[in-house]
Amino acid sequence: MIDPISTIELKKSILEDNDADAEKLRAELNARGVYYINLMSAPGSGKTSLLVKLIGALKDRCAVGVMEADIDGDVDAYTVREAGAEAIQLHTGGMCHLDAGMTREGLQQLDAAGLDLVILENVGNLVCPAEFDTGAHLNLMILSVPEGHDKPLKYPLIFQTCGAMIVNKIDVLPYFDFDLDNVTAFARQRNPDLEIFPISAKTGEGVEALADWLCTRIRTHKEKKKETNA
Amino acid sequence: MIDPISTIELKKSILEDNDADAEKLRAELNARGVYYINLMSAPGSGKTSLLVKLIGALKDRCAVGVMEADIDGDVDAYTVREAGAEAIQLHTGGMCHLDAGMTREGLQQLDAAGLDLVILENVGNLVCPAEFDTGAHLNLMILSVPEGHDKPLKYPLIFQTCGAMIVNKIDVLPYFDFDLDNVTAFARQRNPDLEIFPISAKTGEGVEALADWLCTRIRTHKEKKKETNA
Repeated sequence: MIDPISTIELKKSILEDNDADAEKLRAELNARGVYYINLMSAPGSGKTSLLVKLIGALKDRCAVGVMEADIDGDVDAYTVREAGAEAIQLHTGGMCHLDAGMTREGLQQLDAAGLDLVILENVGNLVCPAEFDTGAHLNLMILSVPEGHDKPLKYPLIFQTCGAMIVNKIDVLPYFDFDLDNVTAFARQRNPDLEIFPISAKTGEGVEALADWLCTRIRTHKEKKKETNA
Repeated sequence: MIDPISTIELKKSILEDNDADAEKLRAELNARGVYYINLMSAPGSGKTSLLVKLIGALKDRCAVGVMEADIDGDVDAYTVREAGAEAIQLHTGGMCHLDAGMTREGLQQLDAAGLDLVILENVGNLVCPAEFDTGAHLNLMILSVPEGHDKPLKYPLIFQTCGAMIVNKIDVLPYFDFDLDNVTAFARQRNPDLEIFPISAKTGEGVEALADWLCTRIRTHKEKKKETNA
């Protein structure tokens, strides 16, 4: 028998000051030694497929937990658990984004104590999730090749709030009018410090480089926290 | 010199009862003989490319106006004007959707009096736009092949509020795990009356069938209104 995935029906946060709550959540996670990543993208950009490949590349190096946020359904939570991560499902009840309070609910259920890394798969949406600090140490976004290289011109905020843009589905580059140089230029107009990782979650190309970069970020963060506490 | 596109910076509507305002807007449009379509999809599904092809197929049969709603930018408004439609640009100022009040602002600027058909290209987002009645006679949505056939399971509301789902980018079907039968079954679970049009905005395949269906809807609507007024 399959062990059922825990599902939490999220409620609107009562706290008015989400930014303050997000800072508080980051401090709580620091105290527990957990690094937390908020993964955002449009619907169908390949968040779950990337997570499956990423968990494969990371699971021998750190204990990974995933919070799958969806308006409905729980297929993705089972998929990432099969890949080797702890997983829970968050239902937003129609809400288009997550905030710090909702994320805390999920983290409590996930029991983040034994985990080194928690990844939130946010609701598929390029607009609203970018407006809410979820308490993450790092925001990541995926832009997939079929979506077009003009997206940084149209959805500026998400590019500004992320530390890295993952360009997914590069295996289908020959079939689309998508220019990697253009998207790099447009995205860096929005955010000059943005790291860019071209990958294919389907073939696995580029995933190892992304996993290495993430591991370095996690290690550096842990060392800094140790120094701060020493 | 290129005639600049009119751009309106939208403000949040003051009206609390959007549903009532949407009904009022529909009545106003009926009185002026304008049919109004609200086109929704995720970012990069091909709304603008479809509009270009659709305007080509419709412009000899009716006068078309387009309102391009974007958080930023105005490239798409120029593109659709070049295709042969009246066009204006609506800037949402970061807002993730349009409501009836914002739409009315756009319609006033577009001067819908001489037009038979007005199409709103809503903000690229599968979540929030579906929650707000914009006063349209018909909601249309695009789901593109690279997004995956599981989207009706994850974003139920938009499939429920649309009269038709346009499955775009069928030219790349061989390169993706996308099953037309599956997406049809999943979408009809959400909305048994949903019309489904597989198309390629790139090659033009299927666009004529969609244009014919729209023309029939517009004609039927006009005839009904005439009977009501007689």
